[in-house]
Amino acid sequence: MIESQTIATIPLFQDLSREHMDLLAACARSQTYRTGDILWMRGETAGSFHIVLSGRVKIFRSSSEGKEQTVYLFGPGEPFCLCSGFDSRSVQPASAQALEPTKVLSLAWDCLSRTTVEHPQLLLKIIQILSRRLKEAMDMVDALSLREIPSRLALFLVHSCDQGNGTVTFQVSQREIAKIIGTTPETLSRVLKRLADEGIIATAERTVTVLDRKRLLQLAGEDHDLKM
Amino acid sequence: MIESQTIATIPLFQDLSREHMDLLAACARSQTYRTGDILWMRGETAGSFHIVLSGRVKIFRSSSEGKEQTVYLFGPGEPFCLCSGFDSRSVQPASAQALEPTKVLSLAWDCLSRTTVEHPQLLLKIIQILSRRLKEAMDMVDALSLREIPSRLALFLVHSCDQGNGTVTFQVSQREIAKIIGTTPETLSRVLKRLADEGIIATAERTVTVLDRKRLLQLAGEDHDLKM
Repeated sequence: MIESQTIATIPLFQDLSREHMDLLAACARSQTYRTGDILWMRGETAGSFHIVLSGRVKIFRSSSEGKEQTVYLFGPGEPFCLCSGFDSRSVQPASAQALEPTKVLSLAWDCLSRTTVEHPQLLLKIIQILSRRLKEAMDMVDALSLREIPSRLALFLVHSCDQGNGTVTFQVSQREIAKIIGTTPETLSRVLKRLADEGIIATAERTVTVLDRKRLLQLAGEDHDLKM
Repeated sequence: MIESQTIATIPLFQDLSREHMDLLAACARSQTYRTGDILWMRGETAGSFHIVLSGRVKIFRSSSEGKEQTVYLFGPGEPFCLCSGFDSRSVQPASAQALEPTKVLSLAWDCLSRTTVEHPQLLLKIIQILSRRLKEAMDMVDALSLREIPSRLALFLVHSCDQGNGTVTFQVSQREIAKIIGTTPETLSRVLKRLADEGIIATAERTVTVLDRKRLLQLAGEDHDLKM
């Protein structure tokens, strides 16, 4: 049972009328997952739209040899499985796994469709989210094809850096970060150490502090000081 | 000067009223490019939405060392620059280049917005296109991270294969195909030869004929016979 108040906390739905929040709440369902639970595998049917209520979900691809590449990490309030795009016959383009105890809200596409008839601005919001995800996917293509591991790590740190204080708090284990960057945990660990030895960053348990922002940006190959 | 008939030939706009086709035609502009012309570079302002009228455009990322990765190839009727997502302040996430003499139609986002007020189904179509592009980007992330070159080439051939007759006609040069697969022209040429020596394909000037579909699919690591 989902409350309308829960729907109201989701950024995507904040501008809806009370009536439509009630409608979405009535057809939404929620499910809890334990750390490591698989939500679905690539190729399964994707009839719904999902939003993380709490916890963290990773979207990943895996090879027949078991190697994994994380494509996205989603936290509270973030919608996912958007790319089945209102098509209830579509299949999951990637697998999903809970990285911590996670609660997910699911809405069938036809339920959301009824809401968008009266709230077409919801479609615009979905377009904006899809656009952002597409840009992130392009960044990942760029990183995997055109960058060596130190540059990929630097770019990851630049993008993950909390604005202002210059620290990066890893929300997930280094093993999971290696799967985002497209490397092994051993290489990630070695490159983090190298950057620390060079005085660019300082590392602690789950925190990286950026000491030399300029050199990190150079290593990331970014002309502009994007998010720091 | 764009005619309403031109607007009517674009799949995205086919269901619009005559009145809205006229409106789009009135605010659209077209531009022609020669082979090799750069339409824009990554980081430039992206205030418009574009559609290829004729020719072929590639969307690419490049490294500071000049290495290139093609992210998308678009031909006649295909919209691009969608991921600026109705945000006229957004910047181009990738560069664009004409691969042959090309004519492009451009529409400012605010012009398109006026049409979507009365035709919200246009937003649904854009969501479907963005969803498909996002899946393609995930396939590319997968290929670059989890696959060796022969498997990437096999996947490219599987996806490019004309349905039915088992041939792939390269729309662009092998040099450009290498940039899609994420390799050098030399490696691509070597791997094509290897697949031909093994009897999986036969190669001619700009055509590849698939001789052993089963082995090609195995090499592509696809469980299902996706598009062939």
